[in-house]
Amino acid sequence: MIGRLNHVAIVVPDLKAATDVYRSTLGAKVSAEEDQPEHGVTTVFIELPNTKIELLGVYGDNSPIAGFLERNPNGGIHHLCYEVPNIEEARDRMVKRGARVLGEPKIGAHGKPVIFLHPKDFCGTLVELEEA
Amino acid sequence: MIGRLNHVAIVVPDLKAATDVYRSTLGAKVSAEEDQPEHGVTTVFIELPNTKIELLGVYGDNSPIAGFLERNPNGGIHHLCYEVPNIEEARDRMVKRGARVLGEPKIGAHGKPVIFLHPKDFCGTLVELEEA
Repeated sequence: MIGRLNHVAIVVPDLKAATDVYRSTLGAKVSAEEDQPEHGVTTVFIELPNTKIELLGVYGDNSPIAGFLERNPNGGIHHLCYEVPNIEEARDRMVKRGARVLGEPKIGAHGKPVIFLHPKDFCGTLVELEEA
Repeated sequence: MIGRLNHVAIVVPDLKAATDVYRSTLGAKVSAEEDQPEHGVTTVFIELPNTKIELLGVYGDNSPIAGFLERNPNGGIHHLCYEVPNIEEARDRMVKRGARVLGEPKIGAHGKPVIFLHPKDFCGTLVELEEA
């Protein structure tokens, strides 16, 4: 079912410093910052030849990544996002196989339907499935 | 400098169970298990269209991932591996820019020269650079 690795999301305490690490130290191509008020994050994309890294910084007072940063003050990998052909079918497959889906399908940060899967059912990794 | 994301490495407490999650629940193509005694791990590759996920299980009594599993009993993402054209040049660039390189270049699990970079200098993420 799963297709491409769409992105790896990394939460960072200082988005400008993290962007500079990827641009200057690792020599990668980086996008401009983009505020996403409806998701409580500011994003920067590291554009690799085969996939992308999504740097996530806090936006606003109720950011969903604030708790993660409290537990991981240096930042860390937050989730992996795999592409799927159809989000409803993916959700139904997960439920049928006993994996925990966190909430209902919703529109994600890229404007496409997504679901999130519980880390305890996926090797300690928060997994996002995105309709490609 | 960095090129493709070569792989995402995930340490797991039970390699057979983790392989089954990726094969049966997520419906991905998975490789056979491969013991790597010289690296203290057993590997399974999840083959995605654009990159791969490397599941790492403990092999032997002195596995380098044993400590990670003690801190993360459900498993978790261990490192990201980016490809670089030349490992010596990559090492020199990291040193010049003040990033901590963990040890000298050595031959990694894929038979290619690799270095590891300190998580505190890379957004809380352990980074492997592999000569492509």
